[in-house]
Amino acid sequence: MESVLDAPEVPEAAFEVVERVEDLLAGVGERAPDHLVEPATEALTSGGKRLRPLLLILSARMSEPEEDALLEAATAIEVLHTATLIHDDIVDRAETRRGLPTTVASYGREIAVATGDYLFAETFTALAQIGDSRLIRAFSEASHGLAAGELEQYRSSGANVEVEAYLDHIRMKTAGLFKAACVAGGTLGGLSLRQIDALATYGQALGIAFQMSDDIMDLVGKPGLMGKGIGTDLVEGTVTLPIIFALREGDAATIRRALADPDPSPDVLEAAIEAVLATGAVARTEAWAMGEIDAAFEGLGLLPGGPERKVLEAVAAEVVGRSA
Amino acid sequence: MESVLDAPEVPEAAFEVVERVEDLLAGVGERAPDHLVEPATEALTSGGKRLRPLLLILSARMSEPEEDALLEAATAIEVLHTATLIHDDIVDRAETRRGLPTTVASYGREIAVATGDYLFAETFTALAQIGDSRLIRAFSEASHGLAAGELEQYRSSGANVEVEAYLDHIRMKTAGLFKAACVAGGTLGGLSLRQIDALATYGQALGIAFQMSDDIMDLVGKPGLMGKGIGTDLVEGTVTLPIIFALREGDAATIRRALADPDPSPDVLEAAIEAVLATGAVARTEAWAMGEIDAAFEGLGLLPGGPERKVLEAVAAEVVGRSA
Repeated sequence: MESVLDAPEVPEAAFEVVERVEDLLAGVGERAPDHLVEPATEALTSGGKRLRPLLLILSARMSEPEEDALLEAATAIEVLHTATLIHDDIVDRAETRRGLPTTVASYGREIAVATGDYLFAETFTALAQIGDSRLIRAFSEASHGLAAGELEQYRSSGANVEVEAYLDHIRMKTAGLFKAACVAGGTLGGLSLRQIDALATYGQALGIAFQMSDDIMDLVGKPGLMGKGIGTDLVEGTVTLPIIFALREGDAATIRRALADPDPSPDVLEAAIEAVLATGAVARTEAWAMGEIDAAFEGLGLLPGGPERKVLEAVAAEVVGRSA
Repeated sequence: MESVLDAPEVPEAAFEVVERVEDLLAGVGERAPDHLVEPATEALTSGGKRLRPLLLILSARMSEPEEDALLEAATAIEVLHTATLIHDDIVDRAETRRGLPTTVASYGREIAVATGDYLFAETFTALAQIGDSRLIRAFSEASHGLAAGELEQYRSSGANVEVEAYLDHIRMKTAGLFKAACVAGGTLGGLSLRQIDALATYGQALGIAFQMSDDIMDLVGKPGLMGKGIGTDLVEGTVTLPIIFALREGDAATIRRALADPDPSPDVLEAAIEAVLATGAVARTEAWAMGEIDAAFEGLGLLPGGPERKVLEAVAAEVVGRSA
C-alpha cells in the first residue's frame, strides 16, 4: 500500500492531516496512566500504514468537515484498531507483529489487557467529545464485529471451514473498520445519506478485497519481490480463501498436513504452498477480490468528483494490484 | 445491600424495571457470538445485586424518562460493569468471584478477553442506539477510569501506598460507574444540569463510601454475622484505607508480614487482622465513609422529593450501616 500513499495524486492536505494524526496518536500514549504509557505509546507509534485514518479523512474531505472533529475521529479509528490488535495478539498468543514483539510478548497479559481496554475507552471518550451519535454508531458496530471475530472461528474449525465462515470473519475483523472509517468520514463531511451508503459499500468491499489480497500474498509473496510467500497462515492453521479453494480442487492431503501441524518442517510447508499454487485457487481468489473492487468502484460514482475520489479509486486499484 | 432492595419503600415500578433488566441481560448473553454465549450468559446472570441499574433507574424516575431508553441504559451499565469484572479477573488472575469460578478460570484467557471485549462493544452499541451523546460521555468517562484503574496500582506499590493513591483508585474503579449510573439516569429523566450535578456528587460519594465499607467488612466481617472478616485484602496484598491507617498507628511489622506473603498462614493472617482491629483504623475509615455519605445527602436536597429520592437516601444510609 505504501505506493498509493506516496502517489503524487494524494492531496497534500490529506497528508498533513495524517501527519497530525501521528502526533495525536503519540499524545494518546503520553496521556495514558503511568504504567501504560510505554506499551500504549509503542503500540500506537509502531509504524502502521494509517490506512483507516486516511480513508476517514479522504471520505470527509469530499465535502468540508470541521477540522478538529476530523482529526479526533481519524485518530480514534486508529486507536480502536490498535486496541483490537493488542487484544487479538493475547487471544492468538502472537509473539511478533510487523517484526516487533507484541504488547503481550513484551509486557505480559495483564498489561496487554489493560492497555487494550484503555485504548478502547479512549476511542469512545474521544467520540463522545465530538458528540455525533452517528459516528458513535459506526464505531460501536465495528467494534462489535471486531470483538465477535476475535477468536478466529474460521481457524478453530480447521480445514473444514466454508467460504461463508471465511467471509463472515473478514467482514467482522477487517471490512467492518474500513467501512466505519468511510461512514464516519462521510458523516463528518456532511454528505447525503445516499453518498454515505456509497462510502459504506466502498469501505466494506475494499476491506474484503484487502484481506483477500493479504491472504494471497502470504502464499505468493509480495508484488515486486522474488520468491514465494512465507505461508504463515498454513503454519498457524488459518484457512484462508485461497486455501479453501485449493483444498477443494488440489492435493488436499498435503495441504492438510501443514495445517494440522503446529510446527511444520520447511519441507512440509513448502510442499503445501506448492500444492496450493498448483491449483487455480489464487486466481479464483484474485477474481473474487476484483469483483469486490468493482463493487467498491460502483458506489463512488455518486460521490463528488475531485482529488479525494481519485485517491479512493487508486487505493482500491492498488489493493488488487492493478492501475487505476 | 439486599436489605435496601427488599425495603418496602422501594417503588414497585423500579423493581419491575430491574426485573426487566435481568431479562435483557440474559438476552445480551444469548445474542453473543456462538462461542461466547455460555461465558457471557454466566457472567451476566451470576446474581449481582444490580445496584448500578437500580441507581440509574431511580435517578431517571425522579422525572419521566422514556421507558425503552431507560431499560437499555440500565442494562448497558450492568453490561459495562460485567465486562470490567471479567477483564479485572484476568489481570488479577482471580479464581473465583461471588463464590463462582471466574470467566478466565473456567474458560481461559482467550475466551475471557473476547467475552469482555464483546460486552464492552455491546455497551456502546446499545448507547449509540439510544443516541444521546451525554449518556455516551458519562459511560465513556467511567470506562476510561475503569481501564486506567485495572492494574490496581495501589496494590503493586505494597504497603507504602498513600491515602491519595487509594482514593484515586477507588474513584476510578468503583465511584466512576456509580456516578455514571446517576448522571445517565438524570439525563434520561431530563433533569436540570444542577440536578444532574447533584446526582453526580451523590453517585461519586456513594461509590467511595461503598468501597470503604467493603474494605471494612473484609476485616470485621459482614454486619449481623458473627466473627471477623476473612482478610482477603491482606492475603492479596491490597492496601485498603483501614490498612493504611493501621500501618501508621499500629503494629506495622505484623501487618506487613501478611501483606508481603502471597500465601500467609492462618496464624499470620489472624495476627494481622488483630493488629488492624487493635487500632482506630476501622473507626477512622467509618468516619471517612460517613463524611462521604453526608456529601452524598447534601446534593439530594436539590432533587424532586418522592419515593425515588427516599430510596437513594436509604441506599446511602445502608452503605454505612445506619438507618436513614
